[in-house]
Amino acid sequence: MLYPRPLERLLAQLEQLPGIGPKTAQRLAFFLLRDEKNRNGALADAIRSIKEQIRPCSRCGNFTDVEVCDICLAPRRENGLLCIVAEARDVLAIENSAEFFGRYHVLGGLISPMDGVGPAKLRLDTLKKRLGDEHIDEVILALSPTVEGETTGSFLGNLLRESKVKVTQLARGLPFGGDLDYADQVTIAGALRGRREL
Amino acid sequence: MLYPRPLERLLAQLEQLPGIGPKTAQRLAFFLLRDEKNRNGALADAIRSIKEQIRPCSRCGNFTDVEVCDICLAPRRENGLLCIVAEARDVLAIENSAEFFGRYHVLGGLISPMDGVGPAKLRLDTLKKRLGDEHIDEVILALSPTVEGETTGSFLGNLLRESKVKVTQLARGLPFGGDLDYADQVTIAGALRGRREL
Repeated sequence: MLYPRPLERLLAQLEQLPGIGPKTAQRLAFFLLRDEKNRNGALADAIRSIKEQIRPCSRCGNFTDVEVCDICLAPRRENGLLCIVAEARDVLAIENSAEFFGRYHVLGGLISPMDGVGPAKLRLDTLKKRLGDEHIDEVILALSPTVEGETTGSFLGNLLRESKVKVTQLARGLPFGGDLDYADQVTIAGALRGRREL
Repeated sequence: MLYPRPLERLLAQLEQLPGIGPKTAQRLAFFLLRDEKNRNGALADAIRSIKEQIRPCSRCGNFTDVEVCDICLAPRRENGLLCIVAEARDVLAIENSAEFFGRYHVLGGLISPMDGVGPAKLRLDTLKKRLGDEHIDEVILALSPTVEGETTGSFLGNLLRESKVKVTQLARGLPFGGDLDYADQVTIAGALRGRREL
């Protein structure tokens, strides 16, 4: 025995979402089935329209529902300081640190020969244009410390050397709340190399 | 900084689902944002229509998209054998055991004075009617071994005594794959009382 068709269809759709297995899909479906607060319509609308409504900012590539995003247009942002991230979702991670007040540039990926992603697939043309147009003094590379992140970082380092802009990258070290005992050797080595005087 | 409005709306909607916290909502939203397989429309449709399309079977209370569910109408089901469960979702749990071939009756809840659920809120009228109409010989109580389940079970035991039908309940004992060492005392006591000759 299976569930009735419409319920099976909903379960199949839910199970295609990332991280949603059969049991979670079932729990969600039963919740939606009751719909005690009459919110299914709003949820359905939000899902249906999200892809049309959100697009990359034409300047920095961040998520926006207009042409140029709020951060690019904000007058009180620090000029001349640009933070390069791989994906639009990384922007919020940096914003949440409340430590950066410049603007962003979203590459739209990381160089990964294994996945067929070369420099040509990244938003580099607009990056070069911005360096001049916006009189950028410093570019901060905020890329994940992975093989792809390191590769992309050193590629960008070479690329930006020509334009005489200062290029920095996020410090490597022990994460807050981490246990020294559990830190891997590459992290400890990086933290030692980057040690700072108290 | 927040996300653009439509994305915030989607996140808020997703976070209202059970078991979906901010991080999971974000991962789902980013997945929906890409919509690489163009499935958002189908998911939205499935969510929007689920409550209209699924209703309780007018006979047993199981989920169905027609008047009377497949199990009630199946000619090859064992007549005279009725399994009482609390919720429609329990039907599939029993079906998956491939050990029961009778029909079901969904109570629609369990007696719980704390939550204001008395016997009047359970589907008991139709149950009594079915006992006669369908010539039921045995009623199996398949209720969760909780306070509410036990209360409802003993209430049904008394109620059904009048109708001279045989009333059984699922065995209490050690769950498959469980560790004796970790079993609680009530479970072990139940397993001892219900011990069977090899």
